[in-house]
Amino acid sequence: MIKTPYVLFLGDAPDPLAAKLAQGITDWRPESSIGQIRLPGCRADMGLPDMTPRAALAAGAKTLVIGVANRGGIISQAWHDTLVEALEAGLDIASGLHSLLRNESRLAKAAGANGRELHDVRLPTTAYPIADGKPRSGLRCLAVGSDCSVGKMYTMLAVEREMHQRGLKASFRATGQTGILITGNGVPLDAVVADFMSGAIEQLTPNNDPEHWDLIEGQGSLFHVSYSGVSLALIHGGAPDALVVCHEPTRKHMRGLPEYPLPSLEDVRDSALSMARVVNPNCKVVGISINSSGMSEAKATAYLGELEERMQLPCIDPFRYGAGKLVDALQSYQAQRV
Amino acid sequence: MIKTPYVLFLGDAPDPLAAKLAQGITDWRPESSIGQIRLPGCRADMGLPDMTPRAALAAGAKTLVIGVANRGGIISQAWHDTLVEALEAGLDIASGLHSLLRNESRLAKAAGANGRELHDVRLPTTAYPIADGKPRSGLRCLAVGSDCSVGKMYTMLAVEREMHQRGLKASFRATGQTGILITGNGVPLDAVVADFMSGAIEQLTPNNDPEHWDLIEGQGSLFHVSYSGVSLALIHGGAPDALVVCHEPTRKHMRGLPEYPLPSLEDVRDSALSMARVVNPNCKVVGISINSSGMSEAKATAYLGELEERMQLPCIDPFRYGAGKLVDALQSYQAQRV
Repeated sequence: MIKTPYVLFLGDAPDPLAAKLAQGITDWRPESSIGQIRLPGCRADMGLPDMTPRAALAAGAKTLVIGVANRGGIISQAWHDTLVEALEAGLDIASGLHSLLRNESRLAKAAGANGRELHDVRLPTTAYPIADGKPRSGLRCLAVGSDCSVGKMYTMLAVEREMHQRGLKASFRATGQTGILITGNGVPLDAVVADFMSGAIEQLTPNNDPEHWDLIEGQGSLFHVSYSGVSLALIHGGAPDALVVCHEPTRKHMRGLPEYPLPSLEDVRDSALSMARVVNPNCKVVGISINSSGMSEAKATAYLGELEERMQLPCIDPFRYGAGKLVDALQSYQAQRV
Repeated sequence: MIKTPYVLFLGDAPDPLAAKLAQGITDWRPESSIGQIRLPGCRADMGLPDMTPRAALAAGAKTLVIGVANRGGIISQAWHDTLVEALEAGLDIASGLHSLLRNESRLAKAAGANGRELHDVRLPTTAYPIADGKPRSGLRCLAVGSDCSVGKMYTMLAVEREMHQRGLKASFRATGQTGILITGNGVPLDAVVADFMSGAIEQLTPNNDPEHWDLIEGQGSLFHVSYSGVSLALIHGGAPDALVVCHEPTRKHMRGLPEYPLPSLEDVRDSALSMARVVNPNCKVVGISINSSGMSEAKATAYLGELEERMQLPCIDPFRYGAGKLVDALQSYQAQRV
């Protein structure tokens, strides 16, 4: 178990998106973080008090969580001094990066010398089966994206919050490191060995009450050439009854791939749906979730209205306006099925 | 390096498909295998002399290759006595299974005691990058399947053989254990960590002469819920100029998934093509490769004729009739592009 409260390490994050992990914890588990640690040049800010590792410990923090990621998930050399300082001060460290804390000799040595723990939540902790494609009881909704980092996790967390407020049975199912740090469990899908990807998602979303919704965090995009295989494994392992298409309308090109334009929402809808129907012929796209954080209020409202007209589906920014419309759509889909 | 010649261990293979690995080595590197070892109940036969481990060593074998696979890639307890016998006789062992030889304590102990080597070709031996989706010089052809085990590797090996006979520049690119044992290198894609799948395939098919063809072994199927993510990573990492759709027409359901019918060839063609065009807008489906091993000569000929009419594409069983038609189609595609 990772001890709370956290202090969030934002490092030298080149932009706010690079600190997505820290932002997710801040938004969905605000009670767990008491401060942030930033290095010179950091362009991310959680709105938490800036602290040194020693001050964080004095304020009650138990664990430094690495809340920043770079391409490839490397533990930057520029972070080492601060991380060692944290271990020496008496903090544990938790990380979801591909590169492991335990493999950095300075960190491993400092952790050992100071009796601190290094938590690498990146790594799967269990062996997953190969998917068998068998139908399961209960209902499942999966977020699929036009791109990476467009709000798939937030959408499903907002749907869960709204469902719980309505007294419905629902579980957010984390498939990435942020989600796992928020909920305490899940599948770190991008670190799973290829053959077991969809089997891991089947295991994450087992048989359940007929009215229970698994709200599955999506990953990547069928149209993102670096990660599309992960996205398809989620569709086939999750066997969703319902899809929510997620999109960030100000994005100029696919994240990390300047040569690649974003797909149309129609293409995302059609590709995801045809793939989902291989495993669940009843699957429907129930709505569209827009990350409108880059738009003014007026622009967002206008855009959502136009999009509803164009797609003939409920379109909402669930973080800005709540997930009510999406939950309405899921409940009406559920009612039709019974 | 794995020492040749091999003796092929067929174990208790429940059917010939389970010994696909042994069959691949036998068909494409016949000079490397001098015999086979079978256990009671074995339903596979390479047409090689049956041997005990000791007789294989006496006949000159250097390595026992595990040529049989079961679901999940486990090293069966029923094989242990024979494998230990082989190590004690003086043979190395090579395996492409998910479960590793080195993790079986009896085998590790016997190998150590007898100075023998255990080769686990299943495991990646290098770290792969995340795919960057950048265009590369040279031409690439990928085999995509309606299902697993429908002849994708054979098709690309047959195309390579035919291209070499015509004096064309071409390289078979192995993405599975059999292919790796045949050609000596490649990417064991199903054992690669999810995030690096398409990057591994980019690395396997780097910049090359403008007229050089990479002939990429396919894996799984976009329609096989257990392995579809691997198939999509191959499409996006391989960035193919040309696709060959592979199919086994007597297959009753998706391999290992009795509830799942096979997709139509039109669906395979359209899904694979639309996904390939995300990364390579020039991509074309150039032909269809049929594994007609389950059909009489007359039936196969009739089927291929009907299919050509229906699909308006060259359709051939390249193992039975040679890959000439497919290479004709690839050369004509290449000529149109220049």
